[in-house]
Amino acid sequence: MATHRGEIYPLHVGDTWKQAPEGGRPEELGRGTPGINRYTDVWGLTELREAIAARTAARTGAAVSRGSILVTGGATAGLMAAVGALVSPGEEVLLLAPRWPLIEGHVRMAGATPVEVPLLLGARDLSPEAAVAAVEAHATEKTVALYLNTPNNPSGRLIPRASLAALAAWARRRDLWIFADEVYEDYAYAGPHAYAFPFAPERTVAAHSLSKAYGLAGARLGWLVGPEAALSQIVKFGAHTIYSAPTASQHAALLILAGAGDAWVAEARTEYAATGAEAARRLDVPAPEGGTFLFVDAARALETRGLMGLLEDCAEKGLFLAPGPSFGPYPTHVRLCYTAVPPVAALRGVDILAKLLGE
Amino acid sequence: MATHRGEIYPLHVGDTWKQAPEGGRPEELGRGTPGINRYTDVWGLTELREAIAARTAARTGAAVSRGSILVTGGATAGLMAAVGALVSPGEEVLLLAPRWPLIEGHVRMAGATPVEVPLLLGARDLSPEAAVAAVEAHATEKTVALYLNTPNNPSGRLIPRASLAALAAWARRRDLWIFADEVYEDYAYAGPHAYAFPFAPERTVAAHSLSKAYGLAGARLGWLVGPEAALSQIVKFGAHTIYSAPTASQHAALLILAGAGDAWVAEARTEYAATGAEAARRLDVPAPEGGTFLFVDAARALETRGLMGLLEDCAEKGLFLAPGPSFGPYPTHVRLCYTAVPPVAALRGVDILAKLLGE
Repeated sequence: MATHRGEIYPLHVGDTWKQAPEGGRPEELGRGTPGINRYTDVWGLTELREAIAARTAARTGAAVSRGSILVTGGATAGLMAAVGALVSPGEEVLLLAPRWPLIEGHVRMAGATPVEVPLLLGARDLSPEAAVAAVEAHATEKTVALYLNTPNNPSGRLIPRASLAALAAWARRRDLWIFADEVYEDYAYAGPHAYAFPFAPERTVAAHSLSKAYGLAGARLGWLVGPEAALSQIVKFGAHTIYSAPTASQHAALLILAGAGDAWVAEARTEYAATGAEAARRLDVPAPEGGTFLFVDAARALETRGLMGLLEDCAEKGLFLAPGPSFGPYPTHVRLCYTAVPPVAALRGVDILAKLLGE
Repeated sequence: MATHRGEIYPLHVGDTWKQAPEGGRPEELGRGTPGINRYTDVWGLTELREAIAARTAARTGAAVSRGSILVTGGATAGLMAAVGALVSPGEEVLLLAPRWPLIEGHVRMAGATPVEVPLLLGARDLSPEAAVAAVEAHATEKTVALYLNTPNNPSGRLIPRASLAALAAWARRRDLWIFADEVYEDYAYAGPHAYAFPFAPERTVAAHSLSKAYGLAGARLGWLVGPEAALSQIVKFGAHTIYSAPTASQHAALLILAGAGDAWVAEARTEYAATGAEAARRLDVPAPEGGTFLFVDAARALETRGLMGLLEDCAEKGLFLAPGPSFGPYPTHVRLCYTAVPPVAALRGVDILAKLLGE
């Protein structure tokens, strides 16, 4: 990237081109904020946990109190701590694929084996029957947990409410943990986002974040919703990874969740949906149902140099994409983040890919 | 603590009562700071790594460039990533004891065994011969690393320069990693802090932090100094724990290291040293050589209720202390942080303990 001359389209990282919501940025916090330079409790600020609990109850309909909320250093730190605390060496974790790259590492870091369950791709059937058949086909006696991400990074699919309910019931029968990665909860376009937690609150640990919802990835602030007994184990692991979440970011989250982020999210959702739909049209793939990515099968454009050859051809034209194998068994796919730069520039990048794909 | 009436002395957590340096607080950053809401590279901001490299070279005399610096989410995240990346299941890590509580968990999280090497306590001989004899007595074929913390949390001891050199030479002969926890580097009172890195730069990973040096624990910002090949492994682990360090904190670190923190540290050092010496006098123990803690043997004051009984008696009077077993094989010790509240209040807390100990 550093050597490319001319405009670049860095669509390989999941991020937003937008500034974070005014009134909730860390650099806008008042100088008098008490304790802003100190650690907080490892669970997070009490008033923030209460605000998140109220929000979660309002959004999900589940009864959620402060004890069910753990503030984390982003969803990444939260999911790592959840997997680290609840999964043991030699066990297996099902990953609904395609899936977020880092979860595979989290499972391996716990000494466990990640098992890919291809399901959330393209136009595949996501009915309750299809979803349960997919996980059942990959479960063994060693399976202890199911990871799912909806809206999906990278595919843009939403897991329908009925299918989520069926997966939760299946996990209950098998006595599995559910790790529900819902960091794109505010960016569901094809219908409302369905929350996993209410279907099996005794076994679901759901990850949320300011990063995607409010364009605040730099704040490293997220939270887990889960059963208090599980969070009491997870918090010990989390305290070893970052101790407490960044204090200024926790104060920013209080402002954001109190309303400073509402208009921002509404505007971003409209813009992201429109950009995603237009990008999909130009690539002749279905419009994304949610999230900030398209996951495109480039098989028809690959020659002897394979996927890396295509990525190099893109890079030569200033377009940077993420390779499919980072997201599971997808040797011919590429992932494109259509929110990483402003829409007009993102679509110019999309056109580069479309041309290489022969669209 | 929530139920105690009257003044409380929360001397159990390592923190400072002081506000962070003016001109370098996250909430003082300019609104226009570009990219402040976004992730940074997982290694950290380039200009910050360069500033840290220059500082490290100036302080240690070693040749250090950007490639030897990894920005982390505090020293906790840095040490966890270092241990996680470089230590494998079944191996053993020597911990010079007493030692920081979380390092034991880091070693266990890697599936390895922590081996306590009592050395840094009270008035013990820290000569090169004594130091090498202590580690040699605990090393086995499974030993892969040595953890040391100077200035020491909790004992306040400094590892002398000659002893550090001898330990480094011993580690080289045994082909071990050295994890050097130097977060109290600015708070050496009995003499200058000796840096571990220059003695064995090919095998030393040193952890540093804004938390203690500049009263910015809430920023969750630290860094590792180490060989580039090792850091290239550690950064992968770190990216799975917090991805990149908080962006606003990285910008704050740039201001702090550019000079905003200098006068603050000088003032804090003088005040901490005086408070520590006076606290030690009242407890009839040697003055701390560095750091922000006293580690006191309370054996003579324990009756049938043991250490927990003493901690309860302290808590009833509003004084909160950390129990010795958190720091290694110290069943009758307590740790006291004399910088957690302003000096006059801290010394009132010290007087409560002194009275219970019969001083």
